[in-house]
Amino acid sequence: MSDFAPDDGFRRFQEFRELHHREQPLLLPNAWDHASAAALAARGFRAIGTTSLGVAAAAGMVDGAGATRAQTVALALGLARLDALITVDIEGGFGEDPGDVAALAAELADAGIVGVNIEDGRADGSLAPVARQREVIAAVKERVPHLFVNARTDTHWLREAPSLDVTLRRVEAYQQEGADGVFVPGLVDDDSVRSVVEAVGVPLNVLFAPGRVSYDRLAELGVRRISTGSLLFRAALDSAVETAWAVAHPDAPVREVPSYGEVQALAERFRG
Amino acid sequence: MSDFAPDDGFRRFQEFRELHHREQPLLLPNAWDHASAAALAARGFRAIGTTSLGVAAAAGMVDGAGATRAQTVALALGLARLDALITVDIEGGFGEDPGDVAALAAELADAGIVGVNIEDGRADGSLAPVARQREVIAAVKERVPHLFVNARTDTHWLREAPSLDVTLRRVEAYQQEGADGVFVPGLVDDDSVRSVVEAVGVPLNVLFAPGRVSYDRLAELGVRRISTGSLLFRAALDSAVETAWAVAHPDAPVREVPSYGEVQALAERFRG
Repeated sequence: MSDFAPDDGFRRFQEFRELHHREQPLLLPNAWDHASAAALAARGFRAIGTTSLGVAAAAGMVDGAGATRAQTVALALGLARLDALITVDIEGGFGEDPGDVAALAAELADAGIVGVNIEDGRADGSLAPVARQREVIAAVKERVPHLFVNARTDTHWLREAPSLDVTLRRVEAYQQEGADGVFVPGLVDDDSVRSVVEAVGVPLNVLFAPGRVSYDRLAELGVRRISTGSLLFRAALDSAVETAWAVAHPDAPVREVPSYGEVQALAERFRG
Repeated sequence: MSDFAPDDGFRRFQEFRELHHREQPLLLPNAWDHASAAALAARGFRAIGTTSLGVAAAAGMVDGAGATRAQTVALALGLARLDALITVDIEGGFGEDPGDVAALAAELADAGIVGVNIEDGRADGSLAPVARQREVIAAVKERVPHLFVNARTDTHWLREAPSLDVTLRRVEAYQQEGADGVFVPGLVDDDSVRSVVEAVGVPLNVLFAPGRVSYDRLAELGVRRISTGSLLFRAALDSAVETAWAVAHPDAPVREVPSYGEVQALAERFRG
């Protein structure tokens, strides 16, 4: 049985939604375990997301393969116990059937989770058909109206030369089905960001990219949510390894924070 | 059924033991999840320990309370799949009965784990009776001779004004029962380190303490294993939180790496 009365869930949904309409964009940091989420809450972040790369890698698994449903749900149920607004990256929904995705969303909402990211990118690098994503988003919003659905399109993430038209068609379609926000990771150039902001009536979420796009610039362009994706997890991993190395090699040169691909490759180190 | 033939386990035990007798002390970094262990292995660390604080905090739990047996075993079974020599912090053994601790040790060894830390400190801040620790160590070594038992005494860890005599009596007792190494976290001053090195015939493990004692100094004093304890985990957590904060506050002052107590307190943020 849930700790949260339905009206409490709705109140939290409203609070979370309101964070997307403040003077400054919502900076949403992404946690991968209980400690990282609790430490972010302790630092003053009211809303916290999860990073599917971090959740997968922490368990010795690869991201984006739809294989981490158990880990994702277990973590979500734990993080729901924090005094914070938690939104969970559920990749493509961990199932083909929209009803199954809606059931998962309801389970998370019942536990006190305030939002989910649902992406249209698939493990093989293709995009799910728009019609299928429409059905999934509609099913989730119908089942759990007070769960903030951040509809992610991977048009700019999976493709080297993305077409902005494809992106715009997708985010508009997802908005029509009730998405509370849209998320386009990989969107960085000013014109593209501005185009998406102008095209949709719900908050646009963009991924922070160090050295490529700043929080202040994205704020100026009208982005309403800036998330960190796997960056914090990768920075953490880097800090751990380099701290260890420096104990015996205090003069060693500083390395770069590992890339997404380097972290994904860690799962290959586990036998069987 | 284990992936490891008994002679393979013995070969790995020998390899791990030999790492304690090289020209330079073994620098043993401590992981808390699959990703941190795999990243350390990728960086070239052949032997990797675990940090009970990290394992507990990652699960939203407190360290040192004997409550993380399930998490510790699950992680150990995962890390055993790495091409690395893994030694596991099992706190006090997760049970009062020496036979139960020996059974846990056998389970880990069967999976391919090369060593364990067993500590005499208890959740209430007291030390387990020497006689009980003797029984535990003897039971483990009898059951699994090819598991490297690093016997930890918390005389310098739990007490503000420790008596070196108490420490020496304990490490000698543990060595008599077959401990392959002894571990005295909190031991930092030259005279104390030298006294323990001279008193025992097995490798001494000391905790690296940034700013208080260096790898080179401990090497000169005859320490054979230098472990990082929870330091890497705390550095990782700090890096994640500060990276997030810096996105929107690029001029914010840099904070200190959180203390052991600050990380322990994170578990209190979870309801119920």
